[in-house]
Amino acid sequence: MAKGQFIAFEGCDGSGKTTVSRAVYERLKEEGYDVIYTREPGGIEISEQIRNVILDPKNVTMDERTEALLYAASRRQHLMEKVLPALEQGKIVLSDRYVLSSLAYQGYARGIGIEEVWRINEFAIEDHMPDHTIFLDIEAKTGIERLKNRASLDRLDKEALSFHERVFDGYKKINEMYKDQIVTFDANRPAEEVIENVWEYLKSVL
Amino acid sequence: MAKGQFIAFEGCDGSGKTTVSRAVYERLKEEGYDVIYTREPGGIEISEQIRNVILDPKNVTMDERTEALLYAASRRQHLMEKVLPALEQGKIVLSDRYVLSSLAYQGYARGIGIEEVWRINEFAIEDHMPDHTIFLDIEAKTGIERLKNRASLDRLDKEALSFHERVFDGYKKINEMYKDQIVTFDANRPAEEVIENVWEYLKSVL
Repeated sequence: MAKGQFIAFEGCDGSGKTTVSRAVYERLKEEGYDVIYTREPGGIEISEQIRNVILDPKNVTMDERTEALLYAASRRQHLMEKVLPALEQGKIVLSDRYVLSSLAYQGYARGIGIEEVWRINEFAIEDHMPDHTIFLDIEAKTGIERLKNRASLDRLDKEALSFHERVFDGYKKINEMYKDQIVTFDANRPAEEVIENVWEYLKSVL
Repeated sequence: MAKGQFIAFEGCDGSGKTTVSRAVYERLKEEGYDVIYTREPGGIEISEQIRNVILDPKNVTMDERTEALLYAASRRQHLMEKVLPALEQGKIVLSDRYVLSSLAYQGYARGIGIEEVWRINEFAIEDHMPDHTIFLDIEAKTGIERLKNRASLDRLDKEALSFHERVFDGYKKINEMYKDQIVTFDANRPAEEVIENVWEYLKSVL
């Protein structure tokens, strides 16, 4: 049995997920917790190679099921090489995204189906679900406004926008399906408030 | 619905699978059939990239479930880009190996479990099972003797040998599990006899 604690942060782009998880990570470190921060592929050579195949701009013919299988493969290797060894050493592992992201992005937004994508991810992670999943819930409208303000997304075109809207819907659905395993935080508020709430929650369970 | 016919050849290394399938392919071509011969990754760029990740000698830490997911991803893309388009054009597609190989190699010989590996391959291929699966059945002892005589396997060490023995056991098991979907040929005989039998069978179904 792993001795550490595995905490995943989930939410749409624009939900403040990365801001919140990094802030909480810094605070845990300051307080002396043995904690690591990661996100797939997380510097794992094999996962990086897989990610390169997914993101290679030449690969325009990639089928969405191929993509979902590659994400599951990358997740598996990252889990085995980075997350589980850290947990076995008793560390707290904060992961920016984990399996629910695939359900929202590949399962729902790409139209493969949430259960279908769950099936291959169950193969990939076996019983290694996070001890705590922190879900940052945001209204689609607010999230998309935030996304539009990001410099790197200036060229966000109509298609990309409708894809993000589907991701929002997907997360709403997943939040209902997995509500027993998720702790949901209202992310429509300023980041400082959300960080404070997440921090209080983590202090109560760690 | 695909108009062509999809024929997979399965069997252990040493079963004569490649010799037999290529011979049958040549004969079909001579008789004027519109036929293609393929095996994964089959020249499909994305599948080749995935195969490179699997076979990269640097990737010694690759987990067996990562490997199985990568094979399934490579298979999916090869199916979508090469097999299905050919079937839609009414071609006969001969494939040297398909999904049963993963069940024998990753599912059984690597110890993940046949049903587990079936699950991710079902995701990869959906309902695209071959119209006919030709299984070349060979005694472990005979197959391994043939393997030992291959120049490229001169350095076959003890571990590799025991792995091949597990593959033989795996195929035996799969042959029982999927016997309704497989046509089995005794491959302990000289290749010419096996080719003749397979040829007669194919002529009766094509």
